[in-house]
Amino acid sequence: MSDNSSRSARYFEELEVGESAAFENARTITGADIANFAGVSGDFHPIHMSSEFAREETQFDGRIAHGQLISDVTESIAADENRHAFSYGHDETRFVKPVYPGDTLSPRRELVEKEVYDEDYGRVVYEYETTNQDGEVVFVDRHTMLVKRRP
Amino acid sequence: MSDNSSRSARYFEELEVGESAAFENARTITGADIANFAGVSGDFHPIHMSSEFAREETQFDGRIAHGQLISDVTESIAADENRHAFSYGHDETRFVKPVYPGDTLSPRRELVEKEVYDEDYGRVVYEYETTNQDGEVVFVDRHTMLVKRRP
Amino acid sequence: MSDNSSRSARYFEELEVGESAAFENARTITGADIANFAGVSGDFHPIHMSSEFAREETQFDGRIAHGQLISDVTESIAADENRHAFSYGHDETRFVKPVYPGDTLSPRRELVEKEVYDEDYGRVVYEYETTNQDGEVVFVDRHTMLVKRRP
Amino acid sequence: MSDNSSRSARYFEELEVGESAAFENARTITGADIANFAGVSGDFHPIHMSSEFAREETQFDGRIAHGQLISDVTESIAADENRHAFSYGHDETRFVKPVYPGDTLSPRRELVEKEVYDEDYGRVVYEYETTNQDGEVVFVDRHTMLVKRRP
Amino acid sequence: MSDNSSRSARYFEELEVGESAAFENARTITGADIANFAGVSGDFHPIHMSSEFAREETQFDGRIAHGQLISDVTESIAADENRHAFSYGHDETRFVKPVYPGDTLSPRRELVEKEVYDEDYGRVVYEYETTNQDGEVVFVDRHTMLVKRRP
Amino acid sequence: MSDNSSRSARYFEELEVGESAAFENARTITGADIANFAGVSGDFHPIHMSSEFAREETQFDGRIAHGQLISDVTESIAADENRHAFSYGHDETRFVKPVYPGDTLSPRRELVEKEVYDEDYGRVVYEYETTNQDGEVVFVDRHTMLVKRRP
Repeated sequence: MSDNSSRSARYFEELEVGESAAFENARTITGADIANFAGVSGDFHPIHMSSEFAREETQFDGRIAHGQLISDVTESIAADENRHAFSYGHDETRFVKPVYPGDTLSPRRELVEKEVYDEDYGRVVYEYETTNQDGEVVFVDRHTMLVKRRP
Repeated sequence: MSDNSSRSARYFEELEVGESAAFENARTITGADIANFAGVSGDFHPIHMSSEFAREETQFDGRIAHGQLISDVTESIAADENRHAFSYGHDETRFVKPVYPGDTLSPRRELVEKEVYDEDYGRVVYEYETTNQDGEVVFVDRHTMLVKRRP
Repeated sequence: MSDNSSRSARYFEELEVGESAAFENARTITGADIANFAGVSGDFHPIHMSSEFAREETQFDGRIAHGQLISDVTESIAADENRHAFSYGHDETRFVKPVYPGDTLSPRRELVEKEVYDEDYGRVVYEYETTNQDGEVVFVDRHTMLVKRRP
Repeated sequence: MSDNSSRSARYFEELEVGESAAFENARTITGADIANFAGVSGDFHPIHMSSEFAREETQFDGRIAHGQLISDVTESIAADENRHAFSYGHDETRFVKPVYPGDTLSPRRELVEKEVYDEDYGRVVYEYETTNQDGEVVFVDRHTMLVKRRP
Repeated sequence: MSDNSSRSARYFEELEVGESAAFENARTITGADIANFAGVSGDFHPIHMSSEFAREETQFDGRIAHGQLISDVTESIAADENRHAFSYGHDETRFVKPVYPGDTLSPRRELVEKEVYDEDYGRVVYEYETTNQDGEVVFVDRHTMLVKRRP
Repeated sequence: MSDNSSRSARYFEELEVGESAAFENARTITGADIANFAGVSGDFHPIHMSSEFAREETQFDGRIAHGQLISDVTESIAADENRHAFSYGHDETRFVKPVYPGDTLSPRRELVEKEVYDEDYGRVVYEYETTNQDGEVVFVDRHTMLVKRRP
């Protein structure tokens, strides 16, 4: 017997508006994450890659994480790794405050919309909100996913 | 004398609605990119990481790239690496078609909105559209950036 | 309300001998995984890194994944990411059959031993067994973890 | 003439019980190593990835390296990269003490067992012991390898 | 209309001896960069990978970046990503001073030689000079590239 | 007793002009290596990263490895990881033929020059020559190192 099926393979019918999850102190963003994100994306903007540039030529206190890195990490943690779902799009993605190396992220999600999409899939919208170790919101997003309907 | 300053450090006043750029055959997405994106984000969903799962349990022809990987790569290529700009947010991000390992991306951008944000910054919106090697649109996005006003 | 706490934070008292989980077609091992494992560990043995060497000088059909990569991936998938547990050791780790780039792994776990360790922790042993896409066992291991007792 | 053949291609008959090697101050484990190990294995447990979690919810002084990372690095350094050998399994692997980012590892090996396995291979067992910069043992393991017999 | 063609696709005829570019505070070299370079190249020499070794057994103040990493980063920044050019070779590459984790690099280039190579290509030589945040030269190189002649 | 000291810690006095080593079929260059090199260096030139670009707009048969990747891998394999040596510079580095994903490299080195540098160090020059699986030379280089004199 497996506890896998019940956990990460939920059909559209099993999801409910209002259900939520919070992931406290889930991940500290480090300089290594910024280097690796630059390496995958190709984005070596000095606001992320140069301490001198960030301190001297921006309004920030030093180099900051790429906004999309925060988005990627939030989605990875907050989206249930539901085997019946895949990503459709994002809306109202906002990088509310800078994330510095050493900051620890606590993402939350809430299912806020749900409707039938076609014969095979339903569409659900999750709201994500990520706070740092001081309780400040650093990131918000609305993530739309398509989820298999029960056969 | 340097040709650097003129190229990648443009003030808000130098940007114009309607300006655009196209980057033909800029990057082929490979299995290595998918592995590295999973490693940075932590998203090991089998739709991206398991050939067997993707073929047998999804409507796709095999494992597909993470949508956010396409978003990250598009932004890295299409966003001018303007030293006077930083990312504010995204809207209407859509993963229009799946991207498979071996597909080659051609991103375009167009500056579609521009307005003063505050004393120091202007706000601009770029529309991104990424096509694959068959000319099919696989990704669209609206990217908002803040850009320094000329001192 | 959160479904997080109930899922990945289980005390010693909540775990039972005989409980099991199976993760079908969880991950395809690729050349990128082998490259990245070599990069982390420093193990560039040509049996993993050279197609020519592997074909000509070993009994295998080409280069094979590092055994420890299979061990690491199995543990990552099969070990519940229980916030109350940490790793103590491994026994009887065996690389039963070679894993080639392109093979897809299906790990299973079963909790086979459980006993009080000290005032604060219990000790549990999981048996792992990983099969490839042909149903052949490629890896077995006994993983001992310490798990917090309920306060 | 090459000094390669004599160094890293030794047949079973050339190995002797009791031979040993020590690798002083061979490698410092850093936050980048932990990030990269998480990225390869998929293990993002907050004991490794979240400073806040590790300090507040565990008995450790901050986030610790994955045990398997120490195992992988030890094997990479301590196992002679013998072109005639490949890995068979591990026993009695123990993570004796936590390894923190910044700790420097000194692995040792000793060949403790040797016997004919079949017509083509011999079986040898290495004992590994890894100490940190304070001389404390942090890791022990018994690594079994198969080594080609002289043709 | 695209501003791409004019920027990163210049024919041999468009390049001039004496043209130069400077990239101030372009990139901070970090421990993550050193780890990733070791992972790609396979070079885990303890002068780069072990703090204890570097402090105790070398004349340096701690571990230093691989010279080739500085070379790779300099070339990546200083070489115009000209779609009509590819790399032919390097000369007089010198690692003038050590680069430590945390140092920020400012590369410059100057085109110092230009001549027809054959019917299809011209040959150009760039001189690179990279300084650290204290204005000290840490790296020099002469990079020869072949560039397409205008059809 | 250790066989480490005798192997990878040789003083200047122990090195001889004419000594050489060959590393047959040491490493296959893969798409993952190219992705990871791009990620470290920041060099995403489409000749390396885009199959479509490389086939359609260059004289090559598809995307090719970065020259510096071949240089880095050659040095990592061919340079004895001598704990008493560090890198001084390179000369006459030439990318003689393109290296494609799937090509297997066999580097050789020969010590061709040796002279006292100062009171503490000697200077030695290695010639590197790397061939592919068809026996064609793809890379040559002269690598100068400083090596500690015997105390």
